[in-house]
Amino acid sequence: MKPHFSLRLRVFNLNCWGIPYLSKHRADRMKRLGDFLNVESFDLALLEEVWSEQDFQYLRQKLLPTYPAAHYFRSGIIGSGLCVFSKHPIQEFTQHVYTLNGYPYMVHHGDWFSGKAVGLLVFHLSGLVLNAYVTHLHAEYNRQKDIYLAHRVAQAWELAHFIHHTSKKADMVLLCGDLNLHPKDLGFRLLKEWTGLHDAYLETQDFKGSEEGCTMVPENCYVNQQELEPFPCGIRIDYVLYKAVSGFCISCKTLKTTTGHDPHSGTPLSDHEALMATLCVRHSPPQHNPSPTHGPVERSPLISVLREACTELDLGVAQARWWATFASYVIGLGLLFLAVLSALVAEGGIREIAILLWTLSVGLVLGVGAVYLFHLQEAKGLCRARAELQHVLGRAREAQNLGPEFKPALFLEHQEGYRTEDQ
Amino acid sequence: MKPHFSLRLRVFNLNCWGIPYLSKHRADRMKRLGDFLNVESFDLALLEEVWSEQDFQYLRQKLLPTYPAAHYFRSGIIGSGLCVFSKHPIQEFTQHVYTLNGYPYMVHHGDWFSGKAVGLLVFHLSGLVLNAYVTHLHAEYNRQKDIYLAHRVAQAWELAHFIHHTSKKADMVLLCGDLNLHPKDLGFRLLKEWTGLHDAYLETQDFKGSEEGCTMVPENCYVNQQELEPFPCGIRIDYVLYKAVSGFCISCKTLKTTTGHDPHSGTPLSDHEALMATLCVRHSPPQHNPSPTHGPVERSPLISVLREACTELDLGVAQARWWATFASYVIGLGLLFLAVLSALVAEGGIREIAILLWTLSVGLVLGVGAVYLFHLQEAKGLCRARAELQHVLGRAREAQNLGPEFKPALFLEHQEGYRTEDQ
Repeated sequence: MKPHFSLRLRVFNLNCWGIPYLSKHRADRMKRLGDFLNVESFDLALLEEVWSEQDFQYLRQKLLPTYPAAHYFRSGIIGSGLCVFSKHPIQEFTQHVYTLNGYPYMVHHGDWFSGKAVGLLVFHLSGLVLNAYVTHLHAEYNRQKDIYLAHRVAQAWELAHFIHHTSKKADMVLLCGDLNLHPKDLGFRLLKEWTGLHDAYLETQDFKGSEEGCTMVPENCYVNQQELEPFPCGIRIDYVLYKAVSGFCISCKTLKTTTGHDPHSGTPLSDHEALMATLCVRHSPPQHNPSPTHGPVERSPLISVLREACTELDLGVAQARWWATFASYVIGLGLLFLAVLSALVAEGGIREIAILLWTLSVGLVLGVGAVYLFHLQEAKGLCRARAELQHVLGRAREAQNLGPEFKPALFLEHQEGYRTEDQ
Repeated sequence: MKPHFSLRLRVFNLNCWGIPYLSKHRADRMKRLGDFLNVESFDLALLEEVWSEQDFQYLRQKLLPTYPAAHYFRSGIIGSGLCVFSKHPIQEFTQHVYTLNGYPYMVHHGDWFSGKAVGLLVFHLSGLVLNAYVTHLHAEYNRQKDIYLAHRVAQAWELAHFIHHTSKKADMVLLCGDLNLHPKDLGFRLLKEWTGLHDAYLETQDFKGSEEGCTMVPENCYVNQQELEPFPCGIRIDYVLYKAVSGFCISCKTLKTTTGHDPHSGTPLSDHEALMATLCVRHSPPQHNPSPTHGPVERSPLISVLREACTELDLGVAQARWWATFASYVIGLGLLFLAVLSALVAEGGIREIAILLWTLSVGLVLGVGAVYLFHLQEAKGLCRARAELQHVLGRAREAQNLGPEFKPALFLEHQEGYRTEDQ
């Protein structure tokens, strides 16, 4: 490879808000999105909330001349909503569906039915291996009383761990998506600390767009203004994150966002803002010194964020077990009630009402039985994430106790990831 | 690394048949298994069907002095049943739960409730990275009319793809487990062709054990003799598979199985036979010639096995969609019936029976609604596996058309895995 080798990568990310029958002006917005992507001719366009496969097929046809490669990630009952359009051939792809993703009985929130996932696409660009990830985490419906917090933390961990295990031979890693996490949220810090990914908004040399890089802004006519009331500038929950893994450095030359309108100041393309980043990859001799922003393990914020995540998952496990126990009591009561009703029917008492109540009770027992099983599974899923976290925490502490000379390979390898071009 | 470097690895695998309340002599077998593992002191013991976490904890305590590291993979409602005991520290672990794993309404088969998965453990041994995988695929209840065939093929593909994406930086790969696949079954061929893993039974220099390496034999008193009637020697469904990925070669020096008794000729340890392999890893300069057993992509059996798997998944998708359509008709009929009954009740007709039928119908509509959603999700899961397979098939065909000089990196990388020491 030439010493002055450099690769420019233009990336687009948008949560498209493409819910059939519910999202306003969906067809028009998809058409305008297709036109825009064709004009701009990005290297890679990563989209979320393309819930309808017809919309994907429409975009695929429209974008075919500019983006010959495309993939739609299918999962769950509705689908993951994730898709990608690329100028460059996709070498490989796979996906990981998150173990925990809300509750099936919260039908009005709908996340459980969508099978939220992370999609991985492998590209070979000028001899370099790029692992591009696209994801969409569980939505936050009530920031004050967030019943999905443990699930979102577990998802952030699974996402980080999936990237960690699948990107070991990649030269560069790119993660785009709607994380439904604010920059200071536990899940986001956990993801950044464990993967060593850099936030394009914080690292870019040139930013143009919404105030504080927000990706849901009150200026957007599709946004629920009430939900944004506590955040006058809006919120930043969509991200472009990246890192160079071995022998390369990567920097963000420019980052743009839309600002509540479409890029030509018309009706917005979605209720979220689009992110457009220009990344520059350059050759860099392998260095074993961690970058100044990330100290060695013993001083790094990794241990504290792992500890915090463990505590959050502990609370989640306790809550899941409480619901399972509560459901088991309801099942017990339901069975008792059924026995009493059966006796009443047998004695020829108030038959009509007894039969009605009997069948209702059977339904209740079966329904609550399903809830019981669901929360058992939830507890298992949270315990699994906690076990992985605790293992990493244990090894981080070991490294701390042994001092910087005795860092286990895991952490050396981990820190190798922390390489970015100084801005 | 020294040129005469060599690493010996002793591996144990057993499906433990540890179903609480149902498996005979479970406590006694667990005790004897623990004693045996302590005496033999393997490097790695990989176990399946340890359904009870209490059994794992019992073994953990018992094996602690000999196997200081252990992990239990939690998933689903019951658990994955997978666990590992190791002499060497576990550097990292993670797991992937299979998207498709039977049907929740087939309660008597129970696979759906267990959350079948593949567990990954990363070890650093003498400076080498070993990725050890342990798994258990969906059981085969009726070989003549196997309603789970598409699910098992999809699982085999997910397993192969998970290994492919997570082992890129490993020096050696080991897969142990109960695959519920005979050596000539589509799923097993797909797994072998896509990962390049070698079958210890076929490659070993020295085999001692049951006829044809069978792991369920009629001599075992716990085996259902009726199920084995078509196979007089038994069946081979448990495996030790391995490969060296880069700069190393690996060979199987010895492979032993139990033969229907415990290793000291007493009552068997399980209804499956245990596998005990001694692997030898040696340094080998990187070669770019594919091994003689695997020709270039255009002559390899990969394309034909991928095609076969696509056909099987096509059938699975059609069947899943048929069930979803059937369920939607039943829902329609149920709703119609409910409307008629509501009219009857309103007119004051045969109230008692009408109420009973009304509530039963509501239950039916809800139950069949769940079945409908389940099969929609099943179709999505199968489509996802088919899309991945088709992509790989497309790239294999591209390589075929371009000739051996133009093999895409994917396949060069893939073939690099096909390296074993000639026996």
